[in-house]
Amino acid sequence: MRIFIAGVDGYLGWPLALHLTSRGHEVAGADNFFRRKWVEEVGSQSATPLSSMDERRDAFLEHFGKELRFWEGDLRDYSLVERIFREFRPEAIVHLGECPSAPYSMIDVDHAVFVQTNNLVTTFNILFGMRDMCPTAHLIKLGTMGEYGTPNTDIPEGFFDIEYRGRRDRFPFPRQAGSWYHWSKVHDSYNVMFACKIWNLRATDVMQGVVFGTRIDEMKDDERLLTRFDFDQVFGTSVNRYCAQAVIGHPLTPYGKGHQKRGFLPLRDSMQCLTLSAEKPAVAGEYRVLNQFEEVYNVTELALKVQKVAGTLGYKVDIRNLENPRKEMEEHYYKPDHQNLFDLGYRPTHDVEAEIGIMLQDLGKYRDRIAAKRDLFTPDVRWDGRRSKARYLASISE
Amino acid sequence: MRIFIAGVDGYLGWPLALHLTSRGHEVAGADNFFRRKWVEEVGSQSATPLSSMDERRDAFLEHFGKELRFWEGDLRDYSLVERIFREFRPEAIVHLGECPSAPYSMIDVDHAVFVQTNNLVTTFNILFGMRDMCPTAHLIKLGTMGEYGTPNTDIPEGFFDIEYRGRRDRFPFPRQAGSWYHWSKVHDSYNVMFACKIWNLRATDVMQGVVFGTRIDEMKDDERLLTRFDFDQVFGTSVNRYCAQAVIGHPLTPYGKGHQKRGFLPLRDSMQCLTLSAEKPAVAGEYRVLNQFEEVYNVTELALKVQKVAGTLGYKVDIRNLENPRKEMEEHYYKPDHQNLFDLGYRPTHDVEAEIGIMLQDLGKYRDRIAAKRDLFTPDVRWDGRRSKARYLASISE
Repeated sequence: MRIFIAGVDGYLGWPLALHLTSRGHEVAGADNFFRRKWVEEVGSQSATPLSSMDERRDAFLEHFGKELRFWEGDLRDYSLVERIFREFRPEAIVHLGECPSAPYSMIDVDHAVFVQTNNLVTTFNILFGMRDMCPTAHLIKLGTMGEYGTPNTDIPEGFFDIEYRGRRDRFPFPRQAGSWYHWSKVHDSYNVMFACKIWNLRATDVMQGVVFGTRIDEMKDDERLLTRFDFDQVFGTSVNRYCAQAVIGHPLTPYGKGHQKRGFLPLRDSMQCLTLSAEKPAVAGEYRVLNQFEEVYNVTELALKVQKVAGTLGYKVDIRNLENPRKEMEEHYYKPDHQNLFDLGYRPTHDVEAEIGIMLQDLGKYRDRIAAKRDLFTPDVRWDGRRSKARYLASISE
Repeated sequence: MRIFIAGVDGYLGWPLALHLTSRGHEVAGADNFFRRKWVEEVGSQSATPLSSMDERRDAFLEHFGKELRFWEGDLRDYSLVERIFREFRPEAIVHLGECPSAPYSMIDVDHAVFVQTNNLVTTFNILFGMRDMCPTAHLIKLGTMGEYGTPNTDIPEGFFDIEYRGRRDRFPFPRQAGSWYHWSKVHDSYNVMFACKIWNLRATDVMQGVVFGTRIDEMKDDERLLTRFDFDQVFGTSVNRYCAQAVIGHPLTPYGKGHQKRGFLPLRDSMQCLTLSAEKPAVAGEYRVLNQFEEVYNVTELALKVQKVAGTLGYKVDIRNLENPRKEMEEHYYKPDHQNLFDLGYRPTHDVEAEIGIMLQDLGKYRDRIAAKRDLFTPDVRWDGRRSKARYLASISE
């Protein structure tokens, strides 16, 4: 299958190119290297050393025996989308070409506007490009479980049937996101849903949980094939940040009470799920929503797992809770469905502690790169608009 | 009260400036005259002759004895919003500064992107401006009943309490909009809701029905005080378009079966409702949603009313249904609540036929301006992306 990856240089995009290629698909991608620039802008760097796209493509050619077709450019430019779709004629499009950071979107008005317009315009261009150039292609668009927020009910996969004042209908499940970034994904989801309805396009919207991990098997032992790994307050997410903290002996830092629950999954399972979505596409006119995560944990449980596995590898670390820079519920019900991917054939391949062990071993090699940016573990982007470093809270998690 | 109107040159913005001023408020406004440019872009013109803002402000000064403070500029420019808020220190902000046309947003990718980004960025700038410069001001943001779509249940005002799998929660009522424009208003609504939550701002989101009318009392008989009146396929809405059609003997043209139901209200009631919202503000942190319309009609009922009133004034017109350029349900349940505004004191002041009579008399003076653009009654912007004139359907409404 010809599969185009928007955002192929990113944390998920790069391993997905490797994984899909190893499954026999013909893969092409585009990127404008925004993620590299954003991480540099906030003063950080990937824990793993990042090869240039030229180096990545050289390694790709050596390992897979074929070229990775690549366009450098900004998908907010519709003429670029036109050119790519005309030249490559994708059968599936995996849309990872968005800014994925909640804190980045909360920095100030410029960042809020940038994140929402960047994400919306890119998605619009892909939708119109599909309509006009490849209307039978299947869009796999990356959403986030964060679109749903933390309602006091179960969370279905996208839609639910309800009775209201004695009448029944099937509705999109109400979204209650928690940052301008998360709202950009909600807005995108609705735009994709509407495009499927009016243009008979087909799409799978993947409500992804929090991904953690340093590698997939297809990276082999070639450092040029590694994906990026962010650990700073803006682009690092919880488990990744904990693992980076552990290998330099920094306390693991859940935010607030640390009882926030989220769905999590290892990077290799994210690859498996995106691949399943592509290989078992939605039908024409269908807007299919999949909740994609392996298991629900609270962020303290995960810190305890990292602490435990780190201990077996000789890293002794504390858990110290930080003031929560976000406005979010710290005690809440959380029970999202995630059956659809299992029905498509998803089988979780790794347990969390085994994956954490692999991560700690990988990151151990890059301790110096992490230590150089250790100040960036501590958040200073606050949801209330102030910009000041979060302080440690009196111990509450032990 | 110091009230700032974003989009003060528009169909609603201009009469609102007059109405609020006559109620004793101190009013200021901004506009970049985009609406004038968009209508010109689609080849049309306002049925009423439009004075320049300078002429409008001269007339304003003559009639009200005070200056209307005005900034010409684009509210997508945050520095302009900062300057206005700093200089004027608004206590209320009525946000009408958006592109309001569904067909305009459906023209092509450029228009879709423009409408969504224009509307989102303007709202973002106002929200951040409020947070940073006037956090106790009250935002009255114009939404649309079209955000809800046409669900098979009653439509509450913004939120509803439901039970799902045995657990209860209060949710935003799911939005199912019908154009890129309508979705831009949904996206905006959610952004405003979130800003109230995280920054303790207060806002009233007005889900407005379809407004019709040529005048309010404060326009007196001074032509310079008239508001614009659009009747073309892109910027004209149903009752306004029917009335413009009637005065030149053009058939009235419901789309499709013509059984689509919507909430409607006269221009003077829209003014009353927006004023009530401003004078009885939401409290800090509150995101209040009002459904604003006088009554639900189907679009054929309204055509029949226009036909009847036109007949009494000597205009004999047919009703001829056109192919529906939109993708929408033409037979559906429709029962939206609209109690909140009545609770604030809203009292409908005019019946629909009386209002239509006034409109036909006003528009009779501008028959030539309407006739010159009669080709633009017939839609050619189609929701499926094709651009071709809708044809008449075999008669179905009589």
